[in-house]
Amino acid sequence: MEYGSQLLENLIKRLTRLPGIGERGAQRIALHLLHSPEENCRELANALLSVREKVGFCPRCGFYTEGRLCFICSDMRRREGLLCVVEQPVEVLSLERSGAYRGRYHVLGGVISPLDGIHPEDLTISPLLERIVAEEISELVLALSAGVEGETTALYLSEKLTEYDVRVTRLARGLPAGSTLEYMDEATLQRAFEGRVEL
Amino acid sequence: MEYGSQLLENLIKRLTRLPGIGERGAQRIALHLLHSPEENCRELANALLSVREKVGFCPRCGFYTEGRLCFICSDMRRREGLLCVVEQPVEVLSLERSGAYRGRYHVLGGVISPLDGIHPEDLTISPLLERIVAEEISELVLALSAGVEGETTALYLSEKLTEYDVRVTRLARGLPAGSTLEYMDEATLQRAFEGRVEL
Repeated sequence: MEYGSQLLENLIKRLTRLPGIGERGAQRIALHLLHSPEENCRELANALLSVREKVGFCPRCGFYTEGRLCFICSDMRRREGLLCVVEQPVEVLSLERSGAYRGRYHVLGGVISPLDGIHPEDLTISPLLERIVAEEISELVLALSAGVEGETTALYLSEKLTEYDVRVTRLARGLPAGSTLEYMDEATLQRAFEGRVEL
Repeated sequence: MEYGSQLLENLIKRLTRLPGIGERGAQRIALHLLHSPEENCRELANALLSVREKVGFCPRCGFYTEGRLCFICSDMRRREGLLCVVEQPVEVLSLERSGAYRGRYHVLGGVISPLDGIHPEDLTISPLLERIVAEEISELVLALSAGVEGETTALYLSEKLTEYDVRVTRLARGLPAGSTLEYMDEATLQRAFEGRVEL
């Protein structure tokens, strides 16, 4: 009964389970809510429930959606024939914010990682192959993470795709914007050298 | 429609209004909830609502409570005749954790600050004076913040209390535990000198 209230303690415990919230932060949030108008609490609780109840995943690409197709799949101004493969729906958000890409997406649901028990059949690879044919995809951009598992998955996909008439590319490797050589790791420097371009 | 869902956007906006949560943090929490079992979301929403509905403030001391008196006011093992004055209920938590004090508390509700429109009559000073008599308080420890407003409030209270038969003390000022002189501000050093004690 450190807080003098089981209910308060319960809320704090639940808040600490959220990502990025420690015990002090959870206490601060719980007490903030306790001191704020009841209306605010009710609206936050409702917002939380409606998201879990009504937001789902696009049956075509796997991105977030409230309806059937997500707003990207239903957007007629997107470049046709171009598909960008990402691991998780959250990565679509990052790419959309960058404004670097105007095609559609395909969420793989992860990367091949036998040690974690994730095999090719656990990912949305079959639906991807079907989309390549159905949507007449001419270029597939692999935007997978730049680690061993991402590379393995990219290799697996590119082998699967040899029998399809589709150009397979992957995002460039090199120095991130604003970086200084001093703080770059060896693997990044090696790839930046290998990928050097004419000025 | 950056997130492809108005509901998701609404939840993220509401989360950023909580203390210590920025936009990135709010996005992370919202997406975590979206991917976690519906049961978890429902329980978090309920925990939030019950705290706001059922947790209130102790009518005697002002600390958090679910019932009538808080667990500290109803604790018969607390030292009688001793009262510690704090500004906010959250400070009771810090003092309780320290284990430095075993008496009861009185939450003032703030400090006198005419610039912010907070005058003595906005604080629980009258109930405090009544408690001193009713509970036969022999020592009142002022645990107010160590700034100008805290000092002003302490001065005001000590003047009010001259006609009462009660010893008024305040927390010591000096170097915080583990501190090095190099990083201490001048006011702290001055007070540490003034308050020096025999070894």
